[in-house]
Parts: sequence; C-alpha cells; structure tokens
Amino acid sequence: MIDFKSLKIDALLVSSPPNVRYLTGYTGSNGMALLTQDTLTLFTDPRYDIRAREEIMQAKMTAQVKVATKPLWEAAAQYIQRKRLKRIGFEQNHVTYAVYKTIDEKLSIGYSLKPVAAVVEELRMVKTGDEMRRIRRAVGTNSKAFEAAAKRIKTGVSEADIAADLDFRMRKLGAEASAFPTIVASGPRTALVHASPTGQTVKPNELLLIDVGAAQDGYMSDMTRMLFLGKPDSKILAMYQAVLEAQLAAIDAVREGAGTWQVDRAARQVLKSTGLDKQFVHSTGHGLGLEIHEAPRIGKKDKTRLQAGMVITIEPGAYIEGFGGMRVEDTVLVTKNGCEVLTPTSKELMVL
Amino acid sequence: MIDFKSLKIDALLVSSPPNVRYLTGYTGSNGMALLTQDTLTLFTDPRYDIRAREEIMQAKMTAQVKVATKPLWEAAAQYIQRKRLKRIGFEQNHVTYAVYKTIDEKLSIGYSLKPVAAVVEELRMVKTGDEMRRIRRAVGTNSKAFEAAAKRIKTGVSEADIAADLDFRMRKLGAEASAFPTIVASGPRTALVHASPTGQTVKPNELLLIDVGAAQDGYMSDMTRMLFLGKPDSKILAMYQAVLEAQLAAIDAVREGAGTWQVDRAARQVLKSTGLDKQFVHSTGHGLGLEIHEAPRIGKKDKTRLQAGMVITIEPGAYIEGFGGMRVEDTVLVTKNGCEVLTPTSKELMVL
Repeated sequence: MIDFKSLKIDALLVSSPPNVRYLTGYTGSNGMALLTQDTLTLFTDPRYDIRAREEIMQAKMTAQVKVATKPLWEAAAQYIQRKRLKRIGFEQNHVTYAVYKTIDEKLSIGYSLKPVAAVVEELRMVKTGDEMRRIRRAVGTNSKAFEAAAKRIKTGVSEADIAADLDFRMRKLGAEASAFPTIVASGPRTALVHASPTGQTVKPNELLLIDVGAAQDGYMSDMTRMLFLGKPDSKILAMYQAVLEAQLAAIDAVREGAGTWQVDRAARQVLKSTGLDKQFVHSTGHGLGLEIHEAPRIGKKDKTRLQAGMVITIEPGAYIEGFGGMRVEDTVLVTKNGCEVLTPTSKELMVL
Repeated sequence: MIDFKSLKIDALLVSSPPNVRYLTGYTGSNGMALLTQDTLTLFTDPRYDIRAREEIMQAKMTAQVKVATKPLWEAAAQYIQRKRLKRIGFEQNHVTYAVYKTIDEKLSIGYSLKPVAAVVEELRMVKTGDEMRRIRRAVGTNSKAFEAAAKRIKTGVSEADIAADLDFRMRKLGAEASAFPTIVASGPRTALVHASPTGQTVKPNELLLIDVGAAQDGYMSDMTRMLFLGKPDSKILAMYQAVLEAQLAAIDAVREGAGTWQVDRAARQVLKSTGLDKQFVHSTGHGLGLEIHEAPRIGKKDKTRLQAGMVITIEPGAYIEGFGGMRVEDTVLVTKNGCEVLTPTSKELMVL
C-alpha cells in the first residue's frame, strides 16, 4: 500500500478529510488517521465516537478508534511518542504551516516530522469495485436530473432557476449534494469558464452551457452539455462540431498506459486544426472520486500514465469573449484497452 | 487597516479565498492577493481574467489584476522581487507546508517569509453596512424558506426530503447555496449534534430539529428551530423551556464591550439550573459573514470583547443520547447597547 521504507518514515499522519475517509470510512468533520506498516488508528472527539465506530464497520475497514478530548494533533503526538514511532510523515499538501509548527514543537527530541507528497491521493487514483459502483450511481443521478431539467428550459427562465431545479432533482434522486456549485451560463456569459448562475434569463437564439455533478454516497460525477434556444447558425454549429470532435478524439486516446498529456494533446490538436486552440484555456480533464478534482490532471504538464480503474473527466472547451463558450464533458472509466464513457446523455447540441 | 509596521512586513500575501474576496471582491477559485501599505494586487489565471476585473469594479475595490499563466505563487514571488518587497507576511493558518516551502525556495537571499496570524479575519469581524445588508437578506431568505417548508412537514416525509425542499426554497428566494449542509434530524437522531439528513421518515410524537442557513450574495445566515409532531409531553416541554431560556439569557448578555465568554456563561448558567449543563456539549455561537464559521467564537475559552457591527449566532442546546436533542439559534447583530435579533421566526416550539 504505502511504502514506508522508501519514504523513510515509521508512520504517516493523515489529516485531509477525504484521505481519512478513504482509509477508514469515517466521514465526520474532525478526524485524523495514523497509519503504520500494520496498524491504523483513527483519532476523533467525543461528538463522533459512536459514528466513527459505525462508519468503520460499515466500510469494512480495520481501524482502532481513539477518542480525544484535546486537539487531535496533541493526542496523536502523545500516541506517537508512546509507540516510539520516531519518523512521522505528514501530508505536506494539507497541513498548514501553523499546524506543522505546533506538532513540531510538541514532539520530543529524537522524533522528526517529514513532509510527504500525495501518497494517499495516489492510492485513490485507481478505484475499487465499490467506488466504481458509487461513481456510476452519481453519474446516473446527474444525467437523469439533467435530462429532466433540460426539457423544462424555455425563454424567460433564469440561469439561477435552472441550477436550483437541477440541484433539487439530484437530491430527490438520492444525491446528498451537488458535486460543486452547478454552472448554468447563457449567451455571452458562456465564455466565462466558471460562471456562477445569475438572475439573467434565457433568451431566444442564445447558447446555454450547463456543467453539473452529483455527490452521492460520498462519490462525485461531472458532466457538461451545450444547449441552444432556437436555430443555431453555421458559426455556432462549426464551433460546436470542433469542440465535440476534440472531446471524441481525447476519449479515443484514453486507455491503460496512455499518458495524460497525450490525451490532452489529442483534444488540443483537433482544436488547433480549426484555429480554436488558443481559446481552449484549461486542461482536458481531471480525476474524480471522493473529491471533484483528484489526481491525475489530464493536462499538458501532467506525467501520469493512465491505469485501468481510474475515473476521469474529458472536457475540452473553447471560449470567445463577447461571443460565447462551449464545453462538452463526460465522466469516463479507464479500461485495459480503452475506456467506458459512463455519462449516458447524448452529446448532440441540444436544440430547444 | 493592517498594521504592516508592527507586523514587521512590507507586504501580506493573502491566499484564503474568503479573505481574497473580502479585500478585492473577486470570487473565483484561483486567486491570491498581495497587499502593501498602499497597493493591492490580485493574481489570477486566464480563466478568470474578465470575471476578476468585473468583480473588483462591482465591489468598488481598487486592485490591479495580474493574469499569470504559471502557478500564482510563482507569479507573486517574481512580482515581490521586482518590487523589492523584502519581508513578506503569509497566512500561517491557510498556507500549506508545501506551498510555504515552494515560495521560500523561490525567493532570493535577502527576502524573507513571515507567518502571520488571522489579521484579515480580524478585520472581517466587524461588518460594513453593505455586509450587514447582505446578511439581513440571507437571514430573510432563510426564515421565509423555513416557515414555508415547515408548514408542509408531516408524518412520512423523510429528513432528506425536508432538507432538499428547504434548500430549493432558499435558492428560489435568491440564495446561491445553502450556508452549510442543512441539518434535519428526527426522533433520537436529534441528539447527534451534526446529523446529516437520512432517508428516515418523520414519525408521530417525535422531535424534529432543523438547522439551516442561506448563502446569499456571498454572505451567510444560520438558524435552528425545534418542531414536534403531535402533543409534546411535559418532559419535552420542560427541556425546550430550559434551552429557550438559555438562548434568551445569552441574547440578553450581548452588547458592545461584553466578553464572548460572558455570553457563553449566561447560557450555561441557565442550563445548569435545570441540570442540563453537561448536555450542552458545544459553544454558544460563532461569528458569521463570508464564512459560516468566523471569529469570534462565543465560547468559554474565547477572549474577544464584542463590538457593535459584529454578527454572531446564539445557539445553546442540550443533547441526551437515546432521547433526543434540542437547540434554538438566531443570527444576531451586536449593537452599542445590546443587540438586534435578525432572525424573525417565532421561537415557540413548533407543534405540527
């Protein structure tokens, strides 16, 4: 699992909530896990005592629960010294400078803290069967809510109303929340890559971009679709075709062993051939699971090779200020010989 | 505003998103502000170029936008050196160890990084007129949604459905989101302080606890009310009376100059007189604004003196495992001679 030897640590303190959940099943707000070669200990406070034990059991994990009435860092530091775990790894991407300083000062001479990279995040990249089932459920909820909500969109409805309707439908279908603040942008606002929905109402002959995901049983989904109210002109259709082809090319490049940068390049090359590469201002996708953005990033500079069981988004786009932007996005499961596009929703430009 | 002299810094790097928003108006996900005695610079990436400029204008802030195609930390480090800002403060409670190390290594000899406490959070404690207006709107939305949703609650409806309905109503009333995952707990589950709503349906002669807030124009509200389906017995009524009196006593203690610990004590003393003080397992309240939990904490160990313009929650509670829990919570504005309870909803135990 985690190579303590090559990391040169005796134990790893895990404090990032999704990482704690991944290792133990515990979902409370206050928790910290200490992992050694053969033990796993979860520190929490009295509020979460019962819940922690229940969740560990439900997740079929083996973790010992320690209930602390002091700050968890202090409880962990004491435990570490009692067990004589001399070299403690900590998650350098999650622990704040202030907390690092506090633990460092709490440990006696002879004990050392060692910054460790995203080792639990690396484990999380390849999904287990149970994780895949949860992601599939979240994807299903997402698509069902989108398809039902899209049918009701008409002139005069506001971006905010569409987003509220989508989010409500996902909840009624079993999601505990939206995976991220739902994006609904209309007209020239589609050129804003991360537009928050406003009171602006949908108008005839306008583009509409909807980017939405569900969080269900702790796991995320993510999709983007483009809609048009009225009859799209040739410029809209050509741009949509380019973005869609870029997305299909990237999906085509997904398989075990392919480099994430190669998948990204596949999308970028299609957009280059239509002169839209400069308008593609973000990366092609990202992993998702317990978090909406996980490793790997499907981008130019990423160096991960895809493995079967990774779940990623494929979402190239192009954005022209004052005109509009387009993006097409699916959630995709990497397989041995290619991939399975989990998102079942049609990728036609949806004309309303 | 910020006392650069006594902090012994030439500039402050602000990376916590609500702090960045407070200083600049910018709401995007990737942003960092650099503040000096007389300049304010916002670093962001090309995705947020247009939006950043628009939001800064709308917020009537004066900030120069720097669009970086490299990590913002790198762009900031370069800028810092070009401007010869030798002593750079950073937010020790937000900056991770890894980012701290990265910037530290990027800066040339003669430049130094200095951990700084929650200085922007301190500024945020006393609200401006515009902030108060936004909080009032969020409070109004929250109460309207609660009152409408409460009327529809009946036997057989699930906790999750009530929560989804509440959240949807807040959105339709102008909230961009819920301020936090809405808590709806029924029966003995009310004893779990942080219960997530489940599929469990509401039953006759059961307590129901609803803790809900709206996020509107970036600002939060927070309220908790108790409901009962059927005719509450004397034990329920006595416990409710104790919790309500504790809440009223704490509200009575709120005024400019009062210590937060004194407000907390006022609630605790009432519960002590009815033997429920050990069941009051959290603090009496917290500040709120751009975040749902802000300084100050209204608790035993906090040392803040209240100032007019602070907005806080007052929310004592009591929780008995296996029986149930109760909490009553309002959002309250501190004034010179007392306070204004912003939450307009009746505090009677709501009998359905």
